[in-house]
Amino acid sequence: MKAVLLSGFGGLDVLRVGEAEKPVPAAGQVLVKVVASSINRPDIVQREGNYPPPKGDSEILGLEVAGTVEALGDGVTNWKVGDRVMTLVGGGGYAEYAVAYANHLMPIPSSMSFEEAACVCESYITAFLNIFMIGELEDGQTIIIHGGGGGVNTAGIQLVRALAPNCKIIVTASPEKIDRVQELGVDLVINYKENPDFTGIIKEYTNKAGVDLILDHIGAKYLAPNMNSLGYKGKLVIIGVTSGIKAELNLALMMVKRQQIIGSVLRSRPVKEKGEIVAEFTRRALPKFADRTIVPLIHATFPIEQIVDAHRTMDEDAHFGKIVLKIAQ
Amino acid sequence: MKAVLLSGFGGLDVLRVGEAEKPVPAAGQVLVKVVASSINRPDIVQREGNYPPPKGDSEILGLEVAGTVEALGDGVTNWKVGDRVMTLVGGGGYAEYAVAYANHLMPIPSSMSFEEAACVCESYITAFLNIFMIGELEDGQTIIIHGGGGGVNTAGIQLVRALAPNCKIIVTASPEKIDRVQELGVDLVINYKENPDFTGIIKEYTNKAGVDLILDHIGAKYLAPNMNSLGYKGKLVIIGVTSGIKAELNLALMMVKRQQIIGSVLRSRPVKEKGEIVAEFTRRALPKFADRTIVPLIHATFPIEQIVDAHRTMDEDAHFGKIVLKIAQ
Repeated sequence: MKAVLLSGFGGLDVLRVGEAEKPVPAAGQVLVKVVASSINRPDIVQREGNYPPPKGDSEILGLEVAGTVEALGDGVTNWKVGDRVMTLVGGGGYAEYAVAYANHLMPIPSSMSFEEAACVCESYITAFLNIFMIGELEDGQTIIIHGGGGGVNTAGIQLVRALAPNCKIIVTASPEKIDRVQELGVDLVINYKENPDFTGIIKEYTNKAGVDLILDHIGAKYLAPNMNSLGYKGKLVIIGVTSGIKAELNLALMMVKRQQIIGSVLRSRPVKEKGEIVAEFTRRALPKFADRTIVPLIHATFPIEQIVDAHRTMDEDAHFGKIVLKIAQ
Repeated sequence: MKAVLLSGFGGLDVLRVGEAEKPVPAAGQVLVKVVASSINRPDIVQREGNYPPPKGDSEILGLEVAGTVEALGDGVTNWKVGDRVMTLVGGGGYAEYAVAYANHLMPIPSSMSFEEAACVCESYITAFLNIFMIGELEDGQTIIIHGGGGGVNTAGIQLVRALAPNCKIIVTASPEKIDRVQELGVDLVINYKENPDFTGIIKEYTNKAGVDLILDHIGAKYLAPNMNSLGYKGKLVIIGVTSGIKAELNLALMMVKRQQIIGSVLRSRPVKEKGEIVAEFTRRALPKFADRTIVPLIHATFPIEQIVDAHRTMDEDAHFGKIVLKIAQ
């Protein structure tokens, strides 16, 4: 089968399209004929050699696919060949065929295209997990989502708007992305280049109360302003550390304000746990895709042959929404 | 009424016994005729001027009392005059009478003395809250409790032994307290003077898995070894910062291992929330006191007139278990 292969680890030049062996679904798995996949930040880190796939998963890049069920592994009874499905995969999404666990699949609503469906699993499930299941955001609370233009972050904004409409959403964004973030219906956008320490703005906006939840992939650089922006019982969920790993933490403040810092990652979770997350997402969030309350934001779609352009777009960080990789018609 | 009063803030010399006005229970409150109270670490901090009581609470020291119901405020129907009760108080425990919220009271089991009962509310409820309700310790897991000799810590050891008997309990203690900690039935005691970084010992003891929960009142000095000792999905609950406030945190490790840091404090919680905690404690833990599975550890009992000796004992930190203040016969 056709697949994106790596000639070593590094920059864009290690990416090439070649032939790989078609995978075989194990018991409890399904073989998906992939129509579209999408690019996620961890793919870049993996390309650079710093994010090996979990043991047993494909070495091929790609964390999510949309397509049709091609074959069933032993014991799979809840899907049938030909079903339109979208799913997380442990790896192997940039290829004509990928295997996925049957309990990670979701049906693609008839109102959605394969390209749109290819954008749902990694970004929206990550945002949903961290905002609603771990962060326990309740309607009417206030949330900060950092880096307004990325896949998980735009997904988070859309999910909060759809599932907890009375929440106040505060987003930090680069100057070029502020207008587009505002169109998503956020309550306050902070230009993070002008305001590397956003604490004062948050305190003023919340009348000193601070926010209930922060979804952060920035890490070290934002730890202090994040903690200073959190209110009583506030939670900081760390899903990335793009600015660095280590920073000073004020434990006394955390104690008195009963705050929490929660480290979170989706990919390495056990299969069963991911299945439970997918089930909860299917129950609460999927109807909002089916009725087009949430429409995945697609920045650009590239055929698999243009994988280098697709990764370059992610590398340059000028995109807004998801970058889709079209594998088949 | 007789009460311990402060002549300013500072050392032992600010403590004196004098006369204060008998408090009046508001609606939903109860007046308790105090038989015994006990000394808690925050009392020392408050004496030194660094821990003002929450607004509306008594300025008199003392966070818990045991005694009998003397009078009922409006609307209190679930207690009657003469009931033997123990309770958290927002302040005012070092006095002949104290007011408490009716939903914070617990009945003293007939098997317990007032002195024993005066040791239950602050230490055991704090330990129970942070280990079982916030830390969600499950039977069979592994916990580290730092500073094995203190009131909350010995309470934590006893509660884990009684409520989750298959847990492994690891305790750090000063050399002088190791033998007594061992008698409480812990699985491993670490001499913290010899092992300021206990990470290696924990890794070896847990076969590199790390522990599920750490109850910590040390703060800054232990943040790094604590995080390095936590396993996958491990939780660090911060209930004190005696060694300092600020320390460096590795966010990447937290993320990959899905760890949590949770700041926690009991005193400033809303009345209703404390009531819910007391209710849960009454349901799960109180039967273990009634049947003498857990017997509060009393280091020494001082009459109120010897308040200076009582505080000196806490200041010198050579005690093991609780220091009781006897207010009346």
